[in-house]
Amino acid sequence: MINGLDHLGIAVSDLDGAIAQWTQITGGKLVHRECVESQRVDVAVIEIGSVRVELLSPTSPDSPVAKFIASRGPGLHHVALQSDSAQGELDRCAEQNARLIDRTVRPGAENSRVGFLHPHALGGVLLEFVDHSTAE
Amino acid sequence: MINGLDHLGIAVSDLDGAIAQWTQITGGKLVHRECVESQRVDVAVIEIGSVRVELLSPTSPDSPVAKFIASRGPGLHHVALQSDSAQGELDRCAEQNARLIDRTVRPGAENSRVGFLHPHALGGVLLEFVDHSTAE
Repeated sequence: MINGLDHLGIAVSDLDGAIAQWTQITGGKLVHRECVESQRVDVAVIEIGSVRVELLSPTSPDSPVAKFIASRGPGLHHVALQSDSAQGELDRCAEQNARLIDRTVRPGAENSRVGFLHPHALGGVLLEFVDHSTAE
Repeated sequence: MINGLDHLGIAVSDLDGAIAQWTQITGGKLVHRECVESQRVDVAVIEIGSVRVELLSPTSPDSPVAKFIASRGPGLHHVALQSDSAQGELDRCAEQNARLIDRTVRPGAENSRVGFLHPHALGGVLLEFVDHSTAE
């Protein structure tokens, strides 16, 4: 079951510049930085009230985020919904023949488990399911 | 002060098709439909756990959402943050010389008051401030 928003993913070209913009404009706070090697991105997490924004800056031209920026420019990249079971959401979507990027969950930031739907499944929106439950 | 997410705005070409996709994929529920004349959009609100998604379908080719779809295709359109005072957020941003679409708030869906920043102020992200307080 989906409980709510986990975070919003924003593609940025200049991570330090984006951190300065977001904290200044929204009054939010930088709470975490991490390199997610599997996605070839540097991640900065900004908390704005109860909203978590992940600023994603590619570390390599073959990063999915680099390709996104090359084709669409920086901006809103994905929506991550928090679930009791990211794998359960992927299974449910697969039963509905929705197009998936991940058929099984993989490691996300901060020890989460994540899985992505293909944007074609949802009118151009890249949706991520996240759970923070302990590994089974 | 910003409290959290008010809603996510998603640009769609086919509102009924998008409602079917979103409710099926996420398990969310359709809770509201409205035509917002000032923006020339039909709006359908989907609740997914604590997340509100506004599906926005243009009713005219000169709607801002129609122009967005024409240039970028359907997908994530804007992020709306809930504040105690949308006007207060606009004033704060103006003091920082951030580029604004609205210098003063205007009526939004469901009797809210809303104001938009220009996407150039925030690395390509269209940000909306919303408050649901009673008019002063």
